[in-house]
Amino acid sequence: MQRIINDPDLVVEESVLGYVKAHPRLLAHTDNPRVLKYPGRVADNKVGVITGGGSGHEPAFLGYVGKNLLDAVAVGEIFSSPTAISFLDAAKAADRGAGVACLYGNYAGDNMNVKMATKMAEKQGITIRTVVANDDVASAPATELGKRRGVAGEILMWKIGGAAAARGYDLDGVIRVAQRTIDQTRSIGVGLSSCVIPAAGKPNFHIEAGTMEVGIGHHGEPGINVTALAPANEMARIMVDTVVPDLPFGAGDEVAVLISGLGATPNNELHILYSAVDELLQEKGIRVHRSYVGNYFTSLEMFGATLTVLKLDDELKQLLDLPATSIGLTQVEED
Amino acid sequence: MQRIINDPDLVVEESVLGYVKAHPRLLAHTDNPRVLKYPGRVADNKVGVITGGGSGHEPAFLGYVGKNLLDAVAVGEIFSSPTAISFLDAAKAADRGAGVACLYGNYAGDNMNVKMATKMAEKQGITIRTVVANDDVASAPATELGKRRGVAGEILMWKIGGAAAARGYDLDGVIRVAQRTIDQTRSIGVGLSSCVIPAAGKPNFHIEAGTMEVGIGHHGEPGINVTALAPANEMARIMVDTVVPDLPFGAGDEVAVLISGLGATPNNELHILYSAVDELLQEKGIRVHRSYVGNYFTSLEMFGATLTVLKLDDELKQLLDLPATSIGLTQVEED
Repeated sequence: MQRIINDPDLVVEESVLGYVKAHPRLLAHTDNPRVLKYPGRVADNKVGVITGGGSGHEPAFLGYVGKNLLDAVAVGEIFSSPTAISFLDAAKAADRGAGVACLYGNYAGDNMNVKMATKMAEKQGITIRTVVANDDVASAPATELGKRRGVAGEILMWKIGGAAAARGYDLDGVIRVAQRTIDQTRSIGVGLSSCVIPAAGKPNFHIEAGTMEVGIGHHGEPGINVTALAPANEMARIMVDTVVPDLPFGAGDEVAVLISGLGATPNNELHILYSAVDELLQEKGIRVHRSYVGNYFTSLEMFGATLTVLKLDDELKQLLDLPATSIGLTQVEED
Repeated sequence: MQRIINDPDLVVEESVLGYVKAHPRLLAHTDNPRVLKYPGRVADNKVGVITGGGSGHEPAFLGYVGKNLLDAVAVGEIFSSPTAISFLDAAKAADRGAGVACLYGNYAGDNMNVKMATKMAEKQGITIRTVVANDDVASAPATELGKRRGVAGEILMWKIGGAAAARGYDLDGVIRVAQRTIDQTRSIGVGLSSCVIPAAGKPNFHIEAGTMEVGIGHHGEPGINVTALAPANEMARIMVDTVVPDLPFGAGDEVAVLISGLGATPNNELHILYSAVDELLQEKGIRVHRSYVGNYFTSLEMFGATLTVLKLDDELKQLLDLPATSIGLTQVEED
């Protein structure tokens, strides 16, 4: 196993230490070693915004703690949910008396632990309300939205939820825009190679050379189908044709587009894919207001990419455009 | 070959299109399809700052065009120098009458083409002066600094040279601080796996599983030696013990540290490496003023990392701390 680690069982512990050392203005420890918080100045009665999830997806989740973004994060082991206590401690770290919005992805472990944390928090006088991301089109049919998993669309939910809280929205308001963001977001992934969980020491699934897995999940969950590896333009067409009719997006829509590499995909290939996606959307009369292309939500060293499209309206656009600072996403005022 | 491309021979052309489409506020086309420029507002008599280099290292080089950074860039084919004409056209795109600083890396092709471009520019009334980065400790002994290659230290040279030009330094001043930056910078890479140049279709070198190549170059140039794959802490020790005595860095120094992944290295592993490097520097009494950890200068999908350390002084620190916006590096004012 070719990796830059010390002990497969200490990957999370040691990387968390590294994140805090490398980015002391963006991330700070709390009493719980699996909970990190934003150490910068924040308005006194701001709604707290938190998330949590398994490790191995960096810069998600901890990389989106920052200014006008998340206040705290619960960190799980590689590809597994943080504990209920960690979600609770993240809520405590983020709470300023105005309540906490927990914006996370639809996975069984996370659902269970957030539910427990919410009950425990209530007993301690902290209100947690949740939005559960389910943007992955491939994970269940449109008739069963509640079964769909959350993937890279979570980043746009955090960006907009974090911006709303920073702008002084109350808990109802933050939940409302975060929910609308995810309701108007669709994603799809394509995997070209697998990844190795350090503690397992071998690939946790397999993708044959010369093939690609359309609809693959962030932990290698099986997709819609395995096909011959297509050229980037065809890959873009498959992804756009899956995502666009599902919402549906249509002519006249303004959207945000996020293309994330899954870890090992060269940055220039992500931009070849973006070029094709942009053209296909334009052909449909869909205008890209803002685009993000890079390693935003990864799966260790998987080769592949996800496409996420969010339908904007004036309110979401303003919130998306608010400057923000974090490890994973730093956005400035445009001049 | 598992890649997200259309035609191996069109990787550069199509990715350049994608970069401009995805980041229209940061990158614009020029008449030369292999030259991109910053489309934002720039002071009238600012010194132009440019670079150029082979593709496959993204976000280097084009990803560092932006506000308070590079004004234009010459884009080469994968792992090969841009043409002299492209360097000349980048200089033309960046020139506002105050001259152009071309800050690039020490490779035979780049040296030859920049030299030709400088002569051609002179005939057209444009002054180009150069700083040639040679921060890679592994590429030649300390007695032959002129033979060393430029690697990720170039990013710090661009950051500081770009900041100086934005602050109104004249050409002499920009060259002076860029040269001092690279003179005070040392880098070393460690490779754990190879990469595939799309047009070649097979790995351009080989690293045996269970081994690592210390001192590997950005194009797989052979390093100092191949050893058994070491734990991250030991890898960090080897890197620090190569870089620190070479300048030398010593107790009381303030430094910037940049750890770049080579393409396929998970973000959390880069931070495990950073944690160990930070501790080793601290033990030596060296203080980290600012750190950068991520995919800043890659080699397609190589697995591995580079460590770059820059010894700061008050002037370099101020310039390094100036906010900047680009695809590869966005830095904001701290509150």
